[in-house]
Amino acid sequence: MKISLCQINPIIGDIEGNKKKIIDGYKKVINDKVDLVIFPELILCGYPPQDLVEKNEFRKAVLKASYEIAEITSETGLLFGTITEQLEEVGTGIYNSAMLCYNGKVQFVQHKSLLPNYDVFDEVRYFESAKEVYIHEFKNEKLGISICEDIWNDSDYWKQRRYSIDPVQSLVDKGATVLLNISASPYAYGRREERREMLSVLTKNDKLPLAYVCCVGAQTDLIFDGGSMCFNSAGELQLLGKIYEEDYLIFDTVKKYEVINNVENSYEEEILNALIMGLSDYAKKSNFTKALVGLSGGIDSALVTYIAVQSFGKENVHVVLMPSEYSSEGSIKDSEKLINNLGISSSLITIQPVFEKIKEVLKDEFNGFEENVTEENLQSRIRGIYLMAISNKKNYMLCTTGNKSEMGVGYATLYGDMNGALGIIADVYKTEVFKICNYINRDKEIIPNEIITKAPSAELRPGQKDEDSLPPYEFLDKILKMYLEEYKEYNEIVEAIGEPETVKKVLRLVDLNEFKRKQAAPALRVTTKAFGYGRRFPIVQKWKR
Amino acid sequence: MKISLCQINPIIGDIEGNKKKIIDGYKKVINDKVDLVIFPELILCGYPPQDLVEKNEFRKAVLKASYEIAEITSETGLLFGTITEQLEEVGTGIYNSAMLCYNGKVQFVQHKSLLPNYDVFDEVRYFESAKEVYIHEFKNEKLGISICEDIWNDSDYWKQRRYSIDPVQSLVDKGATVLLNISASPYAYGRREERREMLSVLTKNDKLPLAYVCCVGAQTDLIFDGGSMCFNSAGELQLLGKIYEEDYLIFDTVKKYEVINNVENSYEEEILNALIMGLSDYAKKSNFTKALVGLSGGIDSALVTYIAVQSFGKENVHVVLMPSEYSSEGSIKDSEKLINNLGISSSLITIQPVFEKIKEVLKDEFNGFEENVTEENLQSRIRGIYLMAISNKKNYMLCTTGNKSEMGVGYATLYGDMNGALGIIADVYKTEVFKICNYINRDKEIIPNEIITKAPSAELRPGQKDEDSLPPYEFLDKILKMYLEEYKEYNEIVEAIGEPETVKKVLRLVDLNEFKRKQAAPALRVTTKAFGYGRRFPIVQKWKR
Repeated sequence: MKISLCQINPIIGDIEGNKKKIIDGYKKVINDKVDLVIFPELILCGYPPQDLVEKNEFRKAVLKASYEIAEITSETGLLFGTITEQLEEVGTGIYNSAMLCYNGKVQFVQHKSLLPNYDVFDEVRYFESAKEVYIHEFKNEKLGISICEDIWNDSDYWKQRRYSIDPVQSLVDKGATVLLNISASPYAYGRREERREMLSVLTKNDKLPLAYVCCVGAQTDLIFDGGSMCFNSAGELQLLGKIYEEDYLIFDTVKKYEVINNVENSYEEEILNALIMGLSDYAKKSNFTKALVGLSGGIDSALVTYIAVQSFGKENVHVVLMPSEYSSEGSIKDSEKLINNLGISSSLITIQPVFEKIKEVLKDEFNGFEENVTEENLQSRIRGIYLMAISNKKNYMLCTTGNKSEMGVGYATLYGDMNGALGIIADVYKTEVFKICNYINRDKEIIPNEIITKAPSAELRPGQKDEDSLPPYEFLDKILKMYLEEYKEYNEIVEAIGEPETVKKVLRLVDLNEFKRKQAAPALRVTTKAFGYGRRFPIVQKWKR
Repeated sequence: MKISLCQINPIIGDIEGNKKKIIDGYKKVINDKVDLVIFPELILCGYPPQDLVEKNEFRKAVLKASYEIAEITSETGLLFGTITEQLEEVGTGIYNSAMLCYNGKVQFVQHKSLLPNYDVFDEVRYFESAKEVYIHEFKNEKLGISICEDIWNDSDYWKQRRYSIDPVQSLVDKGATVLLNISASPYAYGRREERREMLSVLTKNDKLPLAYVCCVGAQTDLIFDGGSMCFNSAGELQLLGKIYEEDYLIFDTVKKYEVINNVENSYEEEILNALIMGLSDYAKKSNFTKALVGLSGGIDSALVTYIAVQSFGKENVHVVLMPSEYSSEGSIKDSEKLINNLGISSSLITIQPVFEKIKEVLKDEFNGFEENVTEENLQSRIRGIYLMAISNKKNYMLCTTGNKSEMGVGYATLYGDMNGALGIIADVYKTEVFKICNYINRDKEIIPNEIITKAPSAELRPGQKDEDSLPPYEFLDKILKMYLEEYKEYNEIVEAIGEPETVKKVLRLVDLNEFKRKQAAPALRVTTKAFGYGRRFPIVQKWKR
């Protein structure tokens, strides 16, 4: 069987646009004499559609478009993900479905059985589970169709399974000869290799070929990397879709291909490209054509500026330098070097007169109080005001520059440097920021070495260094990663790295700063646990270990 | 059977504090010779614990405290909500449970069967469902124990049921003689009467008495109103717990009480008291003792100030007046009258010099551009900076003053008037704000009539009125309520109130402003659909009707 996998980039809610992409994709490959063309999960509405699913008029529009797609089909099969409804006695009757069409009609519908409801997934909120799975005979093959999570509960692979049923095993038991899985699986570093490994074990054990099609593109904070995969019945990866790009693959289940072993690049390369696609897709899908970054002279804003240049083109990136009396001389010099290296436009706007004026106006109010963090926040907020004013006036997208280490411990000013539409590196630890910058400089110096080598500082008071307030980043990041992503407990972290007092302090800072993160911009997600709606903690709470 | 219902106010995560409250509550009523003392759902960890449940060390601490509670029990039963674990082949093995203790031991555990996973509820994310329900014989009664949602799937009451099983019916079938339901059910106006009606139908049909115990207090944005209920086997409400206060009821299942028919007060009274408790609990649980409000002369900030005075006491509320050249004379005069009426302290700080200074600094940047909404936002952001500076310096809790109508259509400035820790009236429509203010003035003028009667204005440009940009609030609020809370579609709204273009514009504004609401402060929830984590829409999306 010849199967075409259409790895496309949908826009959530853009039913007409996505429909056109599906029809165009189908027509594009039909000349290649394929038997079946397959598209990812919920591709017609975009994934995740979230509460749009609860809108009756939205579901009706999706269903209408689904039937319009069916109408254009010839004898070549077209399988795509959509929302279906089925009136039932109990429950909502709304399903996450794979719809198979040919000869102008919907011929077969398979609902999703396993609904992920952890991390960023809320599918039980919207959908009912399939009550049964069926195979469908088509062109002398028995198709075993599953949707994303359905294939992630294989008892041969998982030690502890999440669900009691295994829909893919049921399809195999019912005599499937080809497995098809349509997915929308957000990327995090390491995830692609995990997919390859799990699907390889499954296809090898079940002795069946598999076509696994994924979407590509970013949806607000979620990054879908593409990388669709085709396996032969020996569990060997035969084809791999492009990464971070749309792609159309043709998989002949009886043909011999060279085995692909490497599916994932270095952390630096993967994450950099993921972030570039993330920012670029946010902008395109929100109609922003120009980007704005506040350049401090530090490494975070330098990296964000580089990413913005890759996403928008250098002629569409503007940076603003906003030194104060506490800024080091290097800050300006290093920023100017970066601006030169990248070939972007810049402005230099001082914050001092406004800082002075505000302090003057608030003098009576602050009478008798010492200078403290208030004045540090003030500087950050004046910069935030400038950037938002320029963004509003010129319709630039303001890129937020905070990293995951800072966001973790709340080392950021709400309504100040946290301003912006999207946290570009808010899921990247400070130590990883250094690694990525070094990677960018692998052939020549793009990000000035001075920016990479100087000690990190917020420059909000004389001689300030991040390490005055925080543990060294190497240490901090280890604690954060264990706590946030590996679900390690206080005792385990102390056992692994020592310094119980520091560990306790860091964990406490993470717990205490939910209120800041609640009001943060969405953060491009590149780990298995990012700040955002995949991580839900009460803002007011008193959990103490 | 004599049952004591302990309607207490827990703090999420404060396991030791909540444990003490449970033990104290148990000891307090034990002299009254009751047979059984019952506490609400997940009372030991507080509801909703959210992702704290995923922390192994958190669950262990909750379980340890549960057994410590069991140890102090005599022959009087103690039933309370807690987290339990049970190692299983599939799934997490984590349960939302009711634990019955007496004679120093845990005697019986019933897990929750129906896990709500809609609106603000995410229970499938954390818990497994009970596989079975059991009755427990105790002091000559057969206890039928259920947890919150378990009782909300009665086929006699609901036309369309959410779940296929009915655990309470199973308990009845198994011979229960007394029904007990431990709950944590967030309040929205009308909800208490709905509870009464549903539970009345159920107890009448099942011919069994019911003790239904709820928690009270606010948890960030969620408001729990208390109002625990006891029904006789004729479906008559016999006892009602205090509203917005802790309470300890004693229900004798064989005693005759006077029937209670009215459980809910007027909208104005209920919501006002809910918001006062909401703000006051946020402050107490976050260790704020003083409140700060930016007083514009408009009705929203006037109402928020009144609520702050009720929550913190007048000596702990400070307001700041920040007029600009566009402020009407009345704004100051009316504010001063309110300040007098409430007996609070105030400062007057001009924004003009800072506004001028910023415009001067940005002059080159804005060369060739017209004045537009940027300058309006600037004024709002300068006010936001002042308020945050005072809040930071003096540790005042900044109260956010935006209403639901504004938040719906995005008529608010991000990092400006949206600043603050908590949206006090962000789930109250503008027209309801007027109603509540009139209710506050029912005996004497507290909120100056001038504030209530003048046309709403942001006062950010000369002669500006809200109705220049928005439809009249009476009309806007109808559209918003139908769209947000009643899930009405475009066509239905137009059919009900006409003006298709205006309706389309308003719906579009709601859809387009997710990005602002993502960065908004949490909003006290008093309707069935508030902005916040119970409403989840993609920020980047192109759904058009």
